[in-house]
Order: sequence, then C-alpha cells, then structure tokens
Amino acid sequence: MIHPTAIVSKKAKLGENVSVGAFSIVHDDVVVGANSVIEGHCEIGYPTELAKHEPLIVGRNALIRSHSVFYQGSVLGDNLVTGHRVTVREFTRAGKNLQIGTLSDLQGDCEIGDYVRTHSSVHIGKLSRIGSFVWIYPYVVLTNDPRPPSNYFVGVTVGNYAVIATMSVILPGITIGQGSLVGAHSLVNKDVPEEMVVGGSPARIICEIKQLQLVDGSGNPAYPWRSHFHRGFPPDVVEQWVKESNQTD
Amino acid sequence: MIHPTAIVSKKAKLGENVSVGAFSIVHDDVVVGANSVIEGHCEIGYPTELAKHEPLIVGRNALIRSHSVFYQGSVLGDNLVTGHRVTVREFTRAGKNLQIGTLSDLQGDCEIGDYVRTHSSVHIGKLSRIGSFVWIYPYVVLTNDPRPPSNYFVGVTVGNYAVIATMSVILPGITIGQGSLVGAHSLVNKDVPEEMVVGGSPARIICEIKQLQLVDGSGNPAYPWRSHFHRGFPPDVVEQWVKESNQTD
Amino acid sequence: MIHPTAIVSKKAKLGENVSVGAFSIVHDDVVVGANSVIEGHCEIGYPTELAKHEPLIVGRNALIRSHSVFYQGSVLGDNLVTGHRVTVREFTRAGKNLQIGTLSDLQGDCEIGDYVRTHSSVHIGKLSRIGSFVWIYPYVVLTNDPRPPSNYFVGVTVGNYAVIATMSVILPGITIGQGSLVGAHSLVNKDVPEEMVVGGSPARIICEIKQLQLVDGSGNPAYPWRSHFHRGFPPDVVEQWVKESNQTD
Repeated sequence: MIHPTAIVSKKAKLGENVSVGAFSIVHDDVVVGANSVIEGHCEIGYPTELAKHEPLIVGRNALIRSHSVFYQGSVLGDNLVTGHRVTVREFTRAGKNLQIGTLSDLQGDCEIGDYVRTHSSVHIGKLSRIGSFVWIYPYVVLTNDPRPPSNYFVGVTVGNYAVIATMSVILPGITIGQGSLVGAHSLVNKDVPEEMVVGGSPARIICEIKQLQLVDGSGNPAYPWRSHFHRGFPPDVVEQWVKESNQTD
Repeated sequence: MIHPTAIVSKKAKLGENVSVGAFSIVHDDVVVGANSVIEGHCEIGYPTELAKHEPLIVGRNALIRSHSVFYQGSVLGDNLVTGHRVTVREFTRAGKNLQIGTLSDLQGDCEIGDYVRTHSSVHIGKLSRIGSFVWIYPYVVLTNDPRPPSNYFVGVTVGNYAVIATMSVILPGITIGQGSLVGAHSLVNKDVPEEMVVGGSPARIICEIKQLQLVDGSGNPAYPWRSHFHRGFPPDVVEQWVKESNQTD
Repeated sequence: MIHPTAIVSKKAKLGENVSVGAFSIVHDDVVVGANSVIEGHCEIGYPTELAKHEPLIVGRNALIRSHSVFYQGSVLGDNLVTGHRVTVREFTRAGKNLQIGTLSDLQGDCEIGDYVRTHSSVHIGKLSRIGSFVWIYPYVVLTNDPRPPSNYFVGVTVGNYAVIATMSVILPGITIGQGSLVGAHSLVNKDVPEEMVVGGSPARIICEIKQLQLVDGSGNPAYPWRSHFHRGFPPDVVEQWVKESNQTD
C-alpha cells in the first residue's frame, strides 16, 4: 500500500489500510486514519517552526489527491476528500466530510464545521470561522487584514448552509448569515443577514433567499438548497433534512 | 525517452518518439500520439469511476508541461500545448492546437474547438461549449450552476474568435457571441451579441468591436484580431485570414 | 544535502550548504547562492529556447518551497522565499528579500525591486515594473495587453510601498503611485496618484491614504504602513523607517 518510491517516516502513524502513492513524502508528525488514500507527489506533515511538532491529524477514509501539501499542526475529521494540489497550513481545524477543491489554499488558523465543500481555487484566510454545510465556489477569497499590511487580523465568519458563489471577496471581519447566498463576482463589505441573497461590487441585498426559484422549469424554491440537493450527503443527514422540510410544509 | 524514474503502464499506448519526464506517472488507459512530450511530475490517465476505463486520447506533437494531471476519458487533438500544473478532467473533447495555461482547470464534460488558447488559471466549468480560435485570459471562470448547489447545470457557450479578458465570470447558460470581447473583471449575466464589446459588473454593452483601435499609434482597427495577430498560427490558417481580410477591404 | 532521489545536473553551480529536496530536478544553467534550500518536487532552471542558455541566478539564503518551477534566464536577489507551486519564467529580475506566495505566477520579462511580497495566486504579467516594499495580495493580476490578443504590450508600473489588495486587476500601462492602496476587487483603468486610496470596478479615488486609521481601536494612522508594520524586515530597514517617522512628527 506504500508505493516503493514514497518516502514515509517511520514516526508517522498510518492507520490500517492506508495507501501512499508514488513520489509522496510523509513526515514525522503525522497521524492518518484507517482506509485513507494519499495519492502521488504529495507532501504530508510539512514541518514548520510555527507548528512546534504538533502533529497533522487526518481522520479515517481520507482521499488526498495528487500534488497536495498538508502542514503539521492541523486536525481534519473523517471522510476528507481533496482535489489536486491543495495546500492546508498549520492549525486548520475541520470537522468531518470536508471537501477541498483542486488548487484551494487553506491558510490555517481557521475553524471549519462538518460537510463543508470548497470548489477549485478557494482561498481561506487565517482566522476564518466557517459553519457546517457551507459551499464555497471557485476563486472565492475570505480575507482577514482590514488595513493591509497590519498586525491586526479579523477573520470572516460564514454561517451554516451559506453559499458563496464564484470569485467573490469577503472583507475582513464580515459575517455571512446562515443560509444566505453571495452572488458571483461580489465584494462583500457589510454583514449579510440570514437567508438573504446579496450581490454586486460592493454587494447589496437583492432579495430574500426563499424568493429564488429553481430554473429547471419546476417552479420549486431553490433554497434552502437542502430541500432538493442531497448528492453526496449520508442517509442520516438527508433523512433529517426531509423531516425538517415536512415540518415546514 | 522514458525517464528511468517515470512509472509508465505497459498498457499505455505511446506513439513513436514520445518522451516521459522524471517522476511522472502514466496509467493504463492512455493513448498519446507520436512526437509528444510529457514532462516531469505529471499524472496522465488518472483513473476514475466516472470514466469507466474510457481512455485518455492525446494527439500527436503534444507538449504537456510539468505537474499536470490528465484524467481518463478525454480526447484532445494534435499539437496540444499546456503550461505547468494544468488539470483536465473526464470527457473534455478538444480540437487541435489547444493551448492550456499554467494552473488552468478544465472540469471536463466540455467541448472545445480548434486553436483555443487559455492563459494561466482559467477555470472551464462542466458543460461549457467553446468554439474555435477563442482566447481566455487569466482567472476567467465559466460557470454552470444557476442556483448553487443544484442538480440542474447549464453551460456557457463561447462563439468563434471571441475573447474573454482577465478575471471575468460568465454566468451559467450565457452565450458570448462570435468575435466579441468581454472586458477584464466583468460579470456577464446576459447573452453577448456577436462582434460587441461588453464590460462591467454586471457587464453592459460598451461599443461595437470594430470601433476599437490598436493603441500602438497606428490607428488600425484592433478587431477582428485575426486581421493583425498571427503569431503561433499555421500558414494555412493565416493565409485564409488574409484572403478574408482582402475581400472585406 | 542533495536528496538521493533529486536529479541535479553536474553543470549546475550550487553554493555551499545548498540543499535539494526529494524528487526535485535542477538543470544545467543554474546558479544558486550559499545556504539556500530547494524543497521537493521542484524543477529549477527549466530550459527554454527563449532563454538561450542564460542561467537562472538565485542569491544566497533562498527558500524555494515544494512543486515550484523556475525557468532559466531570471536573476533573483538574496533571501528569496517562495510558497509552494510558484512559477517564475524567463527574464524576471528581482532584488533582495522577494517573497512569492503559493501558486503565484511570474510571467517573466519583469523588474521587481527589493522587499516585495506577493501573497498566494498573484499573477505578474510580462513587462511589469514593480518598485520596492510593494505588497500584492491574493488573486491580483497585473495585465499587459490593451487589445487582447495583440503584439503591443504595455506593462503595469507599481511605485514603492504601494499595496494592491485581493482580486484586483490592473489594466495595461497603468501606474499605481508610490504609497497608494488599491482596495480589494477593483478594476484599475486610470493611473493612481501617490498616497491615495482607490477602489471599485472601475476604481475611483476614495480618499488620501493618510486619512485611513487602524481598526485596532488605537486611532493611529494605518499608512504609511511602515510607520507601524515591521514584521520580517531587517533591523537596518526598520531603523531607517523609524528615523523618517520621527522627522515627520
């Protein structure tokens, strides 16, 4: 399961049935849960002074795709899936079922809930606090320095079920309310209330999210997205959503 | 021609005079045309369930630069040239002379004509249909989900000879008309007619494209760009353009 | 110091105490100063016809992180630090203490002063002229073609101490004045005078930079940033800044 060209430290703690691909490097302070796959050309547990030998801990059933770099000092829950060439720096704390898209860059010192999905090329600045079931689309940046460069950072907060569409920038300290949608190519410089749609540069409130319909001709509401979108979520989660939905009707 | 450190499946069908660089991996279901170069640190024919063993087919004279990942199931014409670290996922169908810039990410399930050039960090969403002789500049995203996340995708259509400038987002289902120019940092939320210039967030029509002059002091029209820009195109293509141009005059 | 899996040309001139990581490739025309670190999975001195065997010259104490690609023909001063997967193409001329963020893409044919810092995913187009002590934040693009595609390129000029915030595009030929700040998600299509704040798409002047205060509650001015931000700069530089600051008071 360890490719003969892979360089794996004897101090790394790999669970049962963990595989490591060709030309990958696994450093000392690494703990990876059972049944995980580390593909080729990766560097896992990249050591830094900042991390002070705190281990990188990855849960069970992870799939880390090729050319990815994970630093020491982060903790990621079970069922992690990444694209290619992702970067995860020190002190990222993430729950279960995180998906990180190709080329995404998690700068560390951040908190991420369960079932969060970032698409390709997402940049999560330090001090970000991201809830659960959040979607972040390509080329979104969560910033943290209100007066760059300074020593005073304030992170972005993203509520549960929120969606941030392609190429939007969220300014430092901003909160995106639970269940809201930030339209593509927006600059968000004010807090977004819950269950709203905002868009523009700078972003303005467009409507309540419940006003948006699917464009598949059904006329059904598009949000909350969990009322119709279940792909990739486990049965117990979906069952709970269906229950909620029935109570609302 | 196969570097001794490269790992190349015996089932891969490499044409005459194909070279594979150091630390690259070539999987089973791969067909690469003669005289192609696969540089180092690549992964070619990345297998996925989705691709169901459909081969990756790359034409003759390809140059795939380092750290690139190509999935199974795509077909790319002759004379492909890529930058470094590109990603090409399943069921990308592209014609000849495609150029893909460094860090670009083709999500697959898309159709691309001949002589298309993407610059660095371009993101081509699934279901995109791109004509021939199209230029796409850095950090452009072609999106596909009008109500993210949903199960109803509609791709972007880009006409022949169209140009999309840096860091523009094209919303799902939008058509960029033949020969048009999308200015930098635009959000395109309406179809763009042929031969027009649009720009802004959201994008508005600025002028007809024939009104734009070169800024080299010549006073010559800047578009159609094929009237003056021929670098890298083969003689037969350029000859045809010159003929057209003479007929127009 | 040279990892046994690294492939290092005998013609490469590596100074004393230079290390090369696993699976890295160092080509012929390369000169690297003493005490430098080239991490794993890199390709250094990538040969091109354009570079005509002009060497890549990297100063002393460089740290080039993993998966990076440096072309022949560039000259970079002492104390270079890069993130992962950076690309530096031919004829980049940079002074000392350059920092290049993860996934940044320097297209070459550009001039960069001393102590410049780019964050992640910055794209520096050809013909850019960047002063000293400049900060460039994620997903910024410096463009160079006013009528894409054309043969007439004009680069962007960025003055000393200027700051360009996240996801801004600077149009070809534009000058960002010394000490100015470009706000996030801006499209800059006019020259920016010295010591001003601009923002928006297209960017407008917002205020003089001296009007911006830190948001740490101190009420102190945020700019010039060198009045309060010294992290990572050497003592002689900071001493000079403190002197200047005292003279101004």
